Amino acid sequence: MGEPFSVAPAILATSVPLLSLGLCEARLQSDARYPWIVLIPRRPGARELEHLGPADRARLMEETVAAGQAVRAAAAALGRPVEKLNVGALGNVTPQLHVHVVGRRVDDPAWPGPVWGLGEALPYPPAQLAAAVETAVEALKGLALKAGA
Amino acid sequence: MGEPFSVAPAILATSVPLLSLGLCEARLQSDARYPWIVLIPRRPGARELEHLGPADRARLMEETVAAGQAVRAAAAALGRPVEKLNVGALGNVTPQLHVHVVGRRVDDPAWPGPVWGLGEALPYPPAQLAAAVETAVEALKGLALKAGA
Repeated sequence: MGEPFSVAPAILATSVPLLSLGLCEARLQSDARYPWIVLIPRRPGARELEHLGPADRARLMEETVAAGQAVRAAAAALGRPVEKLNVGALGNVTPQLHVHVVGRRVDDPAWPGPVWGLGEALPYPPAQLAAAVETAVEALKGLALKAGA
Repeated sequence: MGEPFSVAPAILATSVPLLSLGLCEARLQSDARYPWIVLIPRRPGARELEHLGPADRARLMEETVAAGQAVRAAAAALGRPVEKLNVGALGNVTPQLHVHVVGRRVDDPAWPGPVWGLGEALPYPPAQLAAAVETAVEALKGLALKAGA
């Protein structure tokens, strides 16, 4: 489409960077209520999965699974291991294609409902944020190496 | 894992069959508020994407995109074309791995929030249900043939 890639301002404002994967920018959602990674494919103009080609779609699936492992690792490091992963590509509010990978526990504030649109984000205490970012980045790096990406 | 595959009773109770795809059972959610297909991979015991192998995951992604096209076709046939697709794999209530592909409009009852867990399903009038099923099945058949599946 010609335009350069950039992450949507609404995503930048609510998350912090983790790592650039083969296809996606991986970011940690700034919300201590849930361990939560957002993946944004570096494809300008993409709003739906169908706007990616098949190779990109397969890559997105693999990066989604890797993000799930990183969410599990970060949650364990924070002493709140995850019982279920929730994966969603919605984009009703922020149209840029992005995939949420959210770690869920039966004692989290939204269980068993979805997390999107519920209440206000809870800021991370700085030490917890640092631990979550470090653990998630290490997990993503390890998985990317293992996949030969 | 040895056990035979069957669709979870909670999914059977809230949807009607469309087609068996290469990996998934495709079903139409029995809720006239949203054109909505549920995909259930025929892999006994799978609860998370990571429980599928990479080839199954790539297939699931392609069947998800096909289901999105079928949702669009069914919605158009009902005179309510879709403006956005929402894709989600949650499983907090029904653990069997399943992917929701939901057509969204700015005038639907949940917009811009997620559809899951909101209010009560609205039964389809029989003629509309028949039209939605027929259109979705035709779209899925066409896409499966085109993909050589």
